[in-house]
Amino acid sequence: MALTAPLHGVIPPVCTPLDPHGEVDTASLARLVRRLLDAGVHGLFALGSTGEAAYLTDRQRATALETVVTAAAGRAPVLAGVIDTTTARVLEHARTATALGADALVATAPFYVRTHPREIAAHFRRLRTATGMPLIAYDIPVSVPGRLSPALVRALAEDGTLAGLKDSSGDDGALRRLLVGLGGRTARRTGPAPAFAVLSGSELAADSALLAGVDGIVPGLGNVDPAGYVRLHDAARAGDWPRAAAEQERLVALFDLTDTGPEAEMGRGSSALGGFKAALRLLGVIAHRDTAAPQIPLSEESVAEVGRRLTEAGLLPAPHPPYG
Amino acid sequence: MALTAPLHGVIPPVCTPLDPHGEVDTASLARLVRRLLDAGVHGLFALGSTGEAAYLTDRQRATALETVVTAAAGRAPVLAGVIDTTTARVLEHARTATALGADALVATAPFYVRTHPREIAAHFRRLRTATGMPLIAYDIPVSVPGRLSPALVRALAEDGTLAGLKDSSGDDGALRRLLVGLGGRTARRTGPAPAFAVLSGSELAADSALLAGVDGIVPGLGNVDPAGYVRLHDAARAGDWPRAAAEQERLVALFDLTDTGPEAEMGRGSSALGGFKAALRLLGVIAHRDTAAPQIPLSEESVAEVGRRLTEAGLLPAPHPPYG
Amino acid sequence: MALTAPLHGVIPPVCTPLDPHGEVDTASLARLVRRLLDAGVHGLFALGSTGEAAYLTDRQRATALETVVTAAAGRAPVLAGVIDTTTARVLEHARTATALGADALVATAPFYVRTHPREIAAHFRRLRTATGMPLIAYDIPVSVPGRLSPALVRALAEDGTLAGLKDSSGDDGALRRLLVGLGGRTARRTGPAPAFAVLSGSELAADSALLAGVDGIVPGLGNVDPAGYVRLHDAARAGDWPRAAAEQERLVALFDLTDTGPEAEMGRGSSALGGFKAALRLLGVIAHRDTAAPQIPLSEESVAEVGRRLTEAGLLPAPHPPYG
Amino acid sequence: MALTAPLHGVIPPVCTPLDPHGEVDTASLARLVRRLLDAGVHGLFALGSTGEAAYLTDRQRATALETVVTAAAGRAPVLAGVIDTTTARVLEHARTATALGADALVATAPFYVRTHPREIAAHFRRLRTATGMPLIAYDIPVSVPGRLSPALVRALAEDGTLAGLKDSSGDDGALRRLLVGLGGRTARRTGPAPAFAVLSGSELAADSALLAGVDGIVPGLGNVDPAGYVRLHDAARAGDWPRAAAEQERLVALFDLTDTGPEAEMGRGSSALGGFKAALRLLGVIAHRDTAAPQIPLSEESVAEVGRRLTEAGLLPAPHPPYG
Repeated sequence: MALTAPLHGVIPPVCTPLDPHGEVDTASLARLVRRLLDAGVHGLFALGSTGEAAYLTDRQRATALETVVTAAAGRAPVLAGVIDTTTARVLEHARTATALGADALVATAPFYVRTHPREIAAHFRRLRTATGMPLIAYDIPVSVPGRLSPALVRALAEDGTLAGLKDSSGDDGALRRLLVGLGGRTARRTGPAPAFAVLSGSELAADSALLAGVDGIVPGLGNVDPAGYVRLHDAARAGDWPRAAAEQERLVALFDLTDTGPEAEMGRGSSALGGFKAALRLLGVIAHRDTAAPQIPLSEESVAEVGRRLTEAGLLPAPHPPYG
Repeated sequence: MALTAPLHGVIPPVCTPLDPHGEVDTASLARLVRRLLDAGVHGLFALGSTGEAAYLTDRQRATALETVVTAAAGRAPVLAGVIDTTTARVLEHARTATALGADALVATAPFYVRTHPREIAAHFRRLRTATGMPLIAYDIPVSVPGRLSPALVRALAEDGTLAGLKDSSGDDGALRRLLVGLGGRTARRTGPAPAFAVLSGSELAADSALLAGVDGIVPGLGNVDPAGYVRLHDAARAGDWPRAAAEQERLVALFDLTDTGPEAEMGRGSSALGGFKAALRLLGVIAHRDTAAPQIPLSEESVAEVGRRLTEAGLLPAPHPPYG
Repeated sequence: MALTAPLHGVIPPVCTPLDPHGEVDTASLARLVRRLLDAGVHGLFALGSTGEAAYLTDRQRATALETVVTAAAGRAPVLAGVIDTTTARVLEHARTATALGADALVATAPFYVRTHPREIAAHFRRLRTATGMPLIAYDIPVSVPGRLSPALVRALAEDGTLAGLKDSSGDDGALRRLLVGLGGRTARRTGPAPAFAVLSGSELAADSALLAGVDGIVPGLGNVDPAGYVRLHDAARAGDWPRAAAEQERLVALFDLTDTGPEAEMGRGSSALGGFKAALRLLGVIAHRDTAAPQIPLSEESVAEVGRRLTEAGLLPAPHPPYG
Repeated sequence: MALTAPLHGVIPPVCTPLDPHGEVDTASLARLVRRLLDAGVHGLFALGSTGEAAYLTDRQRATALETVVTAAAGRAPVLAGVIDTTTARVLEHARTATALGADALVATAPFYVRTHPREIAAHFRRLRTATGMPLIAYDIPVSVPGRLSPALVRALAEDGTLAGLKDSSGDDGALRRLLVGLGGRTARRTGPAPAFAVLSGSELAADSALLAGVDGIVPGLGNVDPAGYVRLHDAARAGDWPRAAAEQERLVALFDLTDTGPEAEMGRGSSALGGFKAALRLLGVIAHRDTAAPQIPLSEESVAEVGRRLTEAGLLPAPHPPYG
């Protein structure tokens, strides 16, 4: 399947629920997908960093993607991450994702290897030519050193290699220069739908990104509160920026659930992904909060802290006080 | 002099014009200051990175600051950078700046040396205690490795050590978490003026920063187009976000004047500072476009490119076509 | 097969020759392996960074490893790289490598994901437990951010998780602290063979590493001049340090063949791997100098420069002068 | 005074003892200098990173340098660090150091500012031209981001700008390439004394550096055990590499005194400089172990640990056991 309309709106990077054996919990994943779609999201990004793609075997990736595509049931486009070190390896993931019904592919620049802008360009061009699929470049410097420069992205947009960019760089200045280079927010919003979609991975400044002119947002925290991000997005599209900002502030406070794992004991990734999954279990969406090896699980104390954040954000009722 | 009101609004980091011998061109500097104030800026930041403070001797710094204070003539508060490696050296600059009439001091964490958050806290506390002056922390990771964490900044805000933060990190997510931790934009804008001022160094996303709730902006490009940033700021304060964003987009295009120096031939600092000064000379504000050693000067070709950017942004008339 | 003796000596990371279609050229690879063994190397490291493992599909990796094991024919132990992002993915490579007859596995810490020392330890422990194979930790910060701290390596050596370390960090101070912590060079060379092997990836300071007490060296340049590294190693083992250093200096000059590709046109990886392969083709060892996509190939001019380096190092005769 | 012979041998970066008010303790500093010279060191490096130059005011730097020059009394050349951000500021330190009798200047590339190799070259050339003094480039990436490339250093050596390099990069491969480019160890040791001196800042692999062909070593730990480094150097010069390596191993163990401060409580700089000074006080060389603000002082527990390292290294007698 190919995209029938440009990518836009809220496109959460879908978590991959696992069972205690580390296998994909497909029932939980299907429930999560339906909850996201019921909340009004505009697309789904399977097998991203938030989906623990880098932790899953090829077989597990296929299971997860197939589950997302089936549960999505055509209600929204499914983007599939094809995360791997270099071109030949990424191409194998791309073929699988295409066969499983993904609507677009999301690929990073090569990593582990030392690379060069000309090689990054060759990588994307080969992926595009070999698959014929809409291709989104994924700029995530915390995982892939180096950056996709605005100049490189523009060149690959203009020659038709890329259908979009998922920007998780956190560099709002560079993003703004890219957007202005692509015509600016007014032109992008009032003219025909842009052929090149700019998506921001920011969970904490999605309102700012929409003000700057991005077409969509890809917030990991959107797994936990998809309705909140849809409200934020709708307020922004309606030009009600104070309401968008107020919603963003509530979500910024909720984001503290990614920080409950002590820094001395675990990586920030374990704390964040563990926090998302603990929240989804407390909300009754998924059956287990396991994360993939070798991530350290959250303690019960951290999970309780996650629960308090959900309550403060209005997503969970306050627990009953103990009887006096 | 101490601050009589919280810092807010447009506070450009003032360029330091130099003559061909590398000495401070005080007449040009006074002209620049008056032009900024006439454009409606709300404060002046002397001796910052854009002011080439790290390139100036102590004597030159004093000359520059004295010139800014005199030319400002009390029309707006003057913040003084006290950029140096560690506490004892910064304290000497702080004493000079205080004697010369600065209204507040702007200091980074220690650099060159390897440091620790507890040491950074001790550094700011000692500066505050020894000077009694309002103290702004300057977070600029491109120059000072490491980051001022939101937790550290909040602790130093709450105990009265810091009167503000100048954030040049480009990390909009961390900035948003800090702002929400300080009470959020609504509380900040509707309650009593906040005792702690958050200033963004962003030139390219000042609208986003104001939407997020910052109190002021410190754009280097504000030397060239102060009226543009004042319009952007006023639109944001009036809640006219589309107008703020449109002004921002014009300024993003103008910012291309910082990139005219070829990457193979000079540092990005030389290109940006050279671009600002070339623009100010083309605009007739300063007499020379010299930058401090060992920066490479822009070529005439680059200066012509700067001129074209000024014309496109409506700051210079188009040149006459050559006679046929 | 398991190791019957501790790892030591010269253990080149074997290049993976490719044909013009990007497939493994098994005939060339077998020739390369036999040439290395004939030169007296003490082991072979297949599927390392120099072997372009990160560029090869799983099928290509299996082909390459099988070819090396078969061509080695038991004359020296074969270490197999199992390069992938996280535990579950690495385990799949480990099972394949074990089935194909590798004598030991070489694994990095997790990458792409953000990780923590406790998670790195869990990763190696799970790999060791699940495979039962001798496990070498691969410290290569240029590819895997973060470092394996000497404390972590020692802990994993002492509890039997690791059989060795391949250090490609270039940090000779940290390496020395590790070696002293493990007992020091004298104890290591005069006592019983150490259970934990420290291998240096340095091509440029192998003599220094041997003086510091490493058990073996893993030089990429050893593909091109294995006899040179064997001579260096033998001189060091015989205590003839001036001879070892003289041999090292010749190899440092030869290493210039990794730098013939212009920095403006290609990554340093492409230049280095392209240089090794160009040299091997000029020496008649392999049939093609192709590298894997998306690496940029060396120009003919660069290849000629590689040839000159080989001649200067005494590995190729000087070309005939053109007729006058 | 200018150098009368090329720099070589053991040249410790001299600590700057401070009193409890943070002022230079000149009596202790003179004692330290005499102890170093009595141990046979070949030169003294005042106002380096180990000398806390970045923490000292201009007045304190002058006091420290004057004390070192006076105490040295012409027994060995004195190198003076001129650590500051950019050319004009460094030049002021250079003039003071020259007036106070330094024999050579040691300068880094510009820092805090973003720079470019062409600007670094211009910086050193201007320093050389303006002072006429022998100029040593100081490559210390932990403090000054970026690197002095071997190509840049060679160019500045060949045109007479630089009299030497102090390499604290820890990158033994790059150092080796530079040394081979300069003619190699054999040429350097058997021909006329080289005009360009290569000095290694390594405390942990000084034997390796000498094997590679450096002319001298600049070990911070040499403040504590100068005789040990002189023995190491003399063994290396005599070709007794096993003895040099054994001495190095003893010093590597002693170096653990730089790590007694807990990482959660202080920076690595505070722990290292505090460790050197605690050791010097326990050895009776200096009167106080104060370090400059804002460094965190070592606890008594850490100081006791420093004492144990001195005892293990044979520099302090074992403490009396408590009475039974």
